[in-house]
Amino acid sequence: MGKYVYRFSKELTEGNKDMRDLLGGKGANLHEMSRLGLRVPPGFTITTEACVYFFKNGQKWVEGLRAQVEDALKWLEDINHKGFGDPENPLLVSVRSGARISMPGMMDTVLNLGLNDQTVEGIAAATNNPRFAWDSYRRLIAMFADVVMGIHPAKTEKDPFEVALEEVKAKSGKQYDSELDVDELKDVVNRFKAIVRERGGQEFPQDPKVQMMKAIDAVFMSWMNERAQEYRREHHISDDWGTAVNVQTMVFGNMGEDSATGVMFSRSPATGENKMFGEFLLNAQGEDVVAGVRTPMDIEEMRRVMPAVYEELLDVRNKLERHYRDMQDVEFTIQKATLYILQTRNGKRTGFAAVKVALDMLEEGIIDEKEALLRVEPDQVTHLLRPVFDFKALKEAEKQGRMVGTGLPAGPGAAVGRIVMFADEVKPKAAQWLAQRMEELRKAHPNATHKDLRRMAEQDPRTKVILVRHDTKPEDVAGMMAAEGVLTAFGGRTSHAALVARQRGKTAVVGCKTANVDYEKRTVTFGDKVLREGDVISLNGFTGQVFEGEIRMKDSEIIAVLINKTMAPEESKLFQQFDRLMKTADKYRKLGLRTNADRGSEAKVAIAFGAEGIGLARTEHMFFQEDRILKMRQMIFAKTQEDRVQALSGLIPFQRSDFEDLFSAMEGRPVTIRTLDPPLHEFLPNNEAAIQELAKAMDISVDEVHARIKELSESNPMLGHRGCRLGITYPEITEMQARAIFEAACNVKKKGIDVHVEVMIPLVGHPNELKNQAQIVRDTAARVFKEKGMEVDFLVGTMIEIPRAAVMADQIAQHAQFFSFGTNDLTQMGLGMSRDDYGTFIGDYIQKGILGYDPFMTLEDGIAELVRLGKERGRKARPDLHLGVCGEHGGDPESIYKFHRIGLDYVSASPFRIPVARLAAGRAGLMGDK
Amino acid sequence: MGKYVYRFSKELTEGNKDMRDLLGGKGANLHEMSRLGLRVPPGFTITTEACVYFFKNGQKWVEGLRAQVEDALKWLEDINHKGFGDPENPLLVSVRSGARISMPGMMDTVLNLGLNDQTVEGIAAATNNPRFAWDSYRRLIAMFADVVMGIHPAKTEKDPFEVALEEVKAKSGKQYDSELDVDELKDVVNRFKAIVRERGGQEFPQDPKVQMMKAIDAVFMSWMNERAQEYRREHHISDDWGTAVNVQTMVFGNMGEDSATGVMFSRSPATGENKMFGEFLLNAQGEDVVAGVRTPMDIEEMRRVMPAVYEELLDVRNKLERHYRDMQDVEFTIQKATLYILQTRNGKRTGFAAVKVALDMLEEGIIDEKEALLRVEPDQVTHLLRPVFDFKALKEAEKQGRMVGTGLPAGPGAAVGRIVMFADEVKPKAAQWLAQRMEELRKAHPNATHKDLRRMAEQDPRTKVILVRHDTKPEDVAGMMAAEGVLTAFGGRTSHAALVARQRGKTAVVGCKTANVDYEKRTVTFGDKVLREGDVISLNGFTGQVFEGEIRMKDSEIIAVLINKTMAPEESKLFQQFDRLMKTADKYRKLGLRTNADRGSEAKVAIAFGAEGIGLARTEHMFFQEDRILKMRQMIFAKTQEDRVQALSGLIPFQRSDFEDLFSAMEGRPVTIRTLDPPLHEFLPNNEAAIQELAKAMDISVDEVHARIKELSESNPMLGHRGCRLGITYPEITEMQARAIFEAACNVKKKGIDVHVEVMIPLVGHPNELKNQAQIVRDTAARVFKEKGMEVDFLVGTMIEIPRAAVMADQIAQHAQFFSFGTNDLTQMGLGMSRDDYGTFIGDYIQKGILGYDPFMTLEDGIAELVRLGKERGRKARPDLHLGVCGEHGGDPESIYKFHRIGLDYVSASPFRIPVARLAAGRAGLMGDK
Repeated sequence: MGKYVYRFSKELTEGNKDMRDLLGGKGANLHEMSRLGLRVPPGFTITTEACVYFFKNGQKWVEGLRAQVEDALKWLEDINHKGFGDPENPLLVSVRSGARISMPGMMDTVLNLGLNDQTVEGIAAATNNPRFAWDSYRRLIAMFADVVMGIHPAKTEKDPFEVALEEVKAKSGKQYDSELDVDELKDVVNRFKAIVRERGGQEFPQDPKVQMMKAIDAVFMSWMNERAQEYRREHHISDDWGTAVNVQTMVFGNMGEDSATGVMFSRSPATGENKMFGEFLLNAQGEDVVAGVRTPMDIEEMRRVMPAVYEELLDVRNKLERHYRDMQDVEFTIQKATLYILQTRNGKRTGFAAVKVALDMLEEGIIDEKEALLRVEPDQVTHLLRPVFDFKALKEAEKQGRMVGTGLPAGPGAAVGRIVMFADEVKPKAAQWLAQRMEELRKAHPNATHKDLRRMAEQDPRTKVILVRHDTKPEDVAGMMAAEGVLTAFGGRTSHAALVARQRGKTAVVGCKTANVDYEKRTVTFGDKVLREGDVISLNGFTGQVFEGEIRMKDSEIIAVLINKTMAPEESKLFQQFDRLMKTADKYRKLGLRTNADRGSEAKVAIAFGAEGIGLARTEHMFFQEDRILKMRQMIFAKTQEDRVQALSGLIPFQRSDFEDLFSAMEGRPVTIRTLDPPLHEFLPNNEAAIQELAKAMDISVDEVHARIKELSESNPMLGHRGCRLGITYPEITEMQARAIFEAACNVKKKGIDVHVEVMIPLVGHPNELKNQAQIVRDTAARVFKEKGMEVDFLVGTMIEIPRAAVMADQIAQHAQFFSFGTNDLTQMGLGMSRDDYGTFIGDYIQKGILGYDPFMTLEDGIAELVRLGKERGRKARPDLHLGVCGEHGGDPESIYKFHRIGLDYVSASPFRIPVARLAAGRAGLMGDK
Repeated sequence: MGKYVYRFSKELTEGNKDMRDLLGGKGANLHEMSRLGLRVPPGFTITTEACVYFFKNGQKWVEGLRAQVEDALKWLEDINHKGFGDPENPLLVSVRSGARISMPGMMDTVLNLGLNDQTVEGIAAATNNPRFAWDSYRRLIAMFADVVMGIHPAKTEKDPFEVALEEVKAKSGKQYDSELDVDELKDVVNRFKAIVRERGGQEFPQDPKVQMMKAIDAVFMSWMNERAQEYRREHHISDDWGTAVNVQTMVFGNMGEDSATGVMFSRSPATGENKMFGEFLLNAQGEDVVAGVRTPMDIEEMRRVMPAVYEELLDVRNKLERHYRDMQDVEFTIQKATLYILQTRNGKRTGFAAVKVALDMLEEGIIDEKEALLRVEPDQVTHLLRPVFDFKALKEAEKQGRMVGTGLPAGPGAAVGRIVMFADEVKPKAAQWLAQRMEELRKAHPNATHKDLRRMAEQDPRTKVILVRHDTKPEDVAGMMAAEGVLTAFGGRTSHAALVARQRGKTAVVGCKTANVDYEKRTVTFGDKVLREGDVISLNGFTGQVFEGEIRMKDSEIIAVLINKTMAPEESKLFQQFDRLMKTADKYRKLGLRTNADRGSEAKVAIAFGAEGIGLARTEHMFFQEDRILKMRQMIFAKTQEDRVQALSGLIPFQRSDFEDLFSAMEGRPVTIRTLDPPLHEFLPNNEAAIQELAKAMDISVDEVHARIKELSESNPMLGHRGCRLGITYPEITEMQARAIFEAACNVKKKGIDVHVEVMIPLVGHPNELKNQAQIVRDTAARVFKEKGMEVDFLVGTMIEIPRAAVMADQIAQHAQFFSFGTNDLTQMGLGMSRDDYGTFIGDYIQKGILGYDPFMTLEDGIAELVRLGKERGRKARPDLHLGVCGEHGGDPESIYKFHRIGLDYVSASPFRIPVARLAAGRAGLMGDK
């Protein structure tokens, strides 16, 4: 029989902070803080193992657990000198969840357990405060009904407990809860018990042990509630871990004006500023702060109202931060002027805060540079790159009177979008507005591809959503994540909404008290200004300002310094810290860093961010421009090889000049150019107007255009006539591209700029395909070099994106000087999942736990195995084979760790993902060797 | 310096029959026959290595080759006591190709080398036959011009040599070539030399050594001519092997009426009859017989005209057949009553002949049973299963006067189709007629799928082609292969056309002299009966009869005995030999044999052919029938799970009764049932009429139907919402299917018939998919067993058809009791090649030598590696994992050898492919252990 219960108190503590897997994060830290000598109410922790057993065995308790819980309870009674259910001197406890990794707000808690019709009188006597006792009792009943008994109002119904409370207040003519007297509270208790009886089918349990055991069950169960599951999927947390349960002596922040409850961050989770940050509510209990129902006081106010406690809290802050070597998020309760610490954990923070906290702590000597790297999640650095409002535009908008309100700046950033008022409508509305915008754009740009239209539409703020609510609940998380920003009328900067917004880098303004949200009319009113659902607003997450309409954006400081040089490095502390972080990452980074870029301008951005070469230049993007697409279409409509060659030769000057730009921008760094990849039908017009235009331009009949389009259409274009298959049936295409590449290379080299070209053949499955195409490339190179009277360094290699190529990589390597894993297509083929179609089922897959993550975002393990096989077999045949990856996974941190572990030479990411990839690759270097 | 030249003569022979890789088949056998003491004109063989060098080194001769050839020529002059180019006593030689594996008619030959303006006189004097000498000379010039100098008539032009010959005949008033006198032949020679000069830009070379060296070059080059490459691709022969070249002393069949040239098969290559079979031409040279230009005499005629030679030939036949232990195809020349053997090789034969020869030789004690197995190519047994003409229908057609002519029965079988007269038009016409027929059928069957329409259309003889020609040439092979049968007006049963037809199992009637073929008018006339291109004719390949219109077919003897029991086994010798062959295969077979069958009737056929279970029953086929498709569509249109369940429950009775049929037919053999696989859109109507009908039947608007169809359409359906993905989003579908399966199993078992079900989940990539679906199947089984109060044996396993599943098979195996490799989809995804789309480029791939074979016909090596990985990793996790294959490769012999080598437990093939698979698996067992 194992040990499932661990105790903590000033005198005896069985756990410590390194036992998070067993005791959960909250539990381990309660034990640790007890050890540190902080004032923590004593209690005990039920292990995650007990929870895992519970779910694996039909929701039964593991043998011995009940006895251990009862023993621990007895111990708790002893050290508190109180009895659980003792009418004279009753012990009250809380039961709280606590997983290995913090999942704030996702699971359940029950407070005030131990109160019943007898003990409520005992508490009244012991505290000499019957009002407090009965108020606590009615809170217990309501919370127990909700969490344990699952009594919830219908969607359209008002909370029945709230209604009962209102009735009593109405009857007695009272306005606030706090005005109710003892008899009225007893009336409330009776009404609450009646609700439990009616809706729950049984009485509120009077036996404190039954209350406690059922509360433990309910906390176990809350591990599997829907929002917890969704949170875990989002954060790649395993369902198998289970939660620990903490049973802890109650302390009360609602025992009068010398009592309070609050949340304190050791530094600002929004900006990282090195000062205590937080909020508290006087005479309030437990969840009132995080629930955001009452707007609390700023922590600095405490200096005035409770100066001694403030000093003690400052001391706790310093102690905890140095002990945990990270910014802490602390929950505390003040009971009759005594400070109790109820929880500490590493604080969630914005990207701004993450970078500043890590680098500040490094500068302060609290952590070393490896730790600093590990303090910033790679994706967080993208927060620093996002545009902010243009200062002039802000001032102008203020002058125009477009500022409609101000709230608390809870998530820094700038957000513009259209108002939506229900979280579950964020995604549908966004999709609808996107589709509408694309339809409008299609009329204006009949030749644009679907992808282009989407790209254009996505840049329009009218396709974005700002979620506007009175307050938010944990179930709103998914909607918040899909929104551009969040505005709430209620709640503080440590409220749940604010916390989630910061964690996800959402711009958020909370507690904007002048905003009057009417869910029925779907309006939000600021004074006499009425905004409706669908209206555009702008949120300034740095200042808390809310504007009607759109405000113009400008570059972030990082972009201003690095890319546009509109700011000097020494002007921006943010840039300096960002830069130090990047350079620190480089020290530990083993993966090379390239970028996916098709234009000189993109390449320059990537270099500024630290790219060391181009991993993928897609030549086809060059053909979509207005002046080129016609030549391309002529090529496609050509009936003979001669006509094709003729049309293609018209494209050479364009390609050559594009390549010259690229080579010049890269200044001697390697440039990997992929030959034509998409099927020819992608270049054809897709609507009648454009077809007519094309027919006219080419002097052929509309029918002919239609016929050719039909001829080129495919059942499964993903698996059709594309990639090197085009170059094999139409060798003149490869030849034209090779000619453009080598002519450009010679021209640039002639100007004294070094050039290293890597010509990459796409969609190779069989070595003969590569052999065929490589021959054309080499022959063309030789011809061009002869014509130009000079030579340029070049390699010929291939993408590995077909499963066959990965498992037969030894064959392929005989003809390839490098491999670049095209993990987008490798995922499509390796999983048999079309990226255009998987939307119809991937939701079910994630929801049912079949896949833990989206395989097009993060490299799937089976695809990683194909990459590993490709590496192993390729290197076996050619030990010096250079290996990279150019799929979009090259910019995803989780995937980068996998590529590092497999032992590739470099990853390639889009220019704006380079900082993320750079940090991730640096962290990967810390995580273990190749 | 290597040895590149090997000599053969009665006195000195350097090679033998086991040196085919080096000396080619023809060469090795010339050496062997010399050793055996047969009268073979002496000569020497240039090795295939010399040819390989030639192609690898810019068509240069390997160092030393020229000297070795000159030495060997010197030796040849010595043993013949003649001089090459000696005007007094000239030696003449032939230069012939000879690859490792015989490629009849594909490469080039030059005869009579050594003749020039001087030696022609020497030959005239030596043979005392100036007419013969000058006739030989003009033949050399024409052949040299064609083969060596590449002088060919334009497509629309008559052969200029033919024209010159005709002019001389016209001028002298002669009708036949043989009537020309010496002076007239000299005139022909001069005209021929003029043609060479004009068209070749140089004189016909007078130097015999130049003639010979150039002829050797030309034979090397002919290895790479287009038809040879095509032939090699068809027969999976490597381009890298090269051809040997045989230089041999000329003997002449055209030296008078005591001379002849001919071809002899040791048994009938058409039927296998154990008697000498063949043809010869008196006073003729070389290629006249195989070219089919003159219709030759039957070999039995020789008994009359040259009795002594006939006896000697019979002796040679017996000697060679016993020596080579196989039916031989022998070329001979009789020069002035002396028999020379010019070639022997294993004879190409029909399936009928292959089976009969192998079993006869086994019964005669010439070969053992392992050899008998190796004498029959697996695909050849399909010839025995094809329908033959119904005897009554034949008699009726004769009575109706529909028999229009009779030729030589060169390829047994029955063929009906429409006349096409040019080989290169066979495929286009067939495609056109198929499309037309499908269009007609679509009108009659608006609900039928594209596949169904195709299947129906293919059964219509009006979509088939009979190639009708005056004679055929090697370049007609591709067209012949695409035709249903071949009819020629000219040529014998050993002509090229006949040989190819037999080898490929084509029905062929040759030498139908009454057929008058007019290529210009595109007609063929029999007496006054004019048939036009597109008219239907029927060929009886057993008798040589040609009929106008269609003749009804009936079962082959094998089918009559085994399947329809309309014939007793003892009535059919063919069946008995087939049966013995199958049972012999079983003795060596290690692979199990299952069938892909969806219906009880199909299952019965498969069992009769030897299937030991069902490897794949596709449940979706059951839904396409008229009475079921509506329920299926209701299910698809259902908006709620409840409605879906309702519609599905309507399908249970159909599925259950189908499964009952299957289980009953299989009588306890394992039955693998795959749950629903195709995407739902495949079940929806695809034309407006059917859409309207559906809308009416379901009482919804046409717009709603359209909307749902649009909603379900996919960009890449291959990689979309199908397979287990359907069962995961709609668990009720899997549940319905499992219920039908287990209810049927219980019902059948109740009748006393044993049932073994294997439920197979398709398109599994991730173990969680299988876990999810297997759970539904097991839960449903438990429920049904409880309801029925009984249990039935069952397994749950999966298809391995997604590359991820193959490389992560260890994970999958934890939830699978068996794997069945779905090599169709594994090929599509593993190669990234859609079966519906690869037609646009696979032709180029084969033609350019990128792929050696169609990967959907024969398992591609990379896909084989995925299967091997799947086996290795699956067995590692679960050593008792049962492994099969159910893709169409399961019926392909080459693929079966690969599956055997990988070590799978069984293959599954369609019912009519079972005999092929059975024989192939038996042969695989002989070829080496697992």
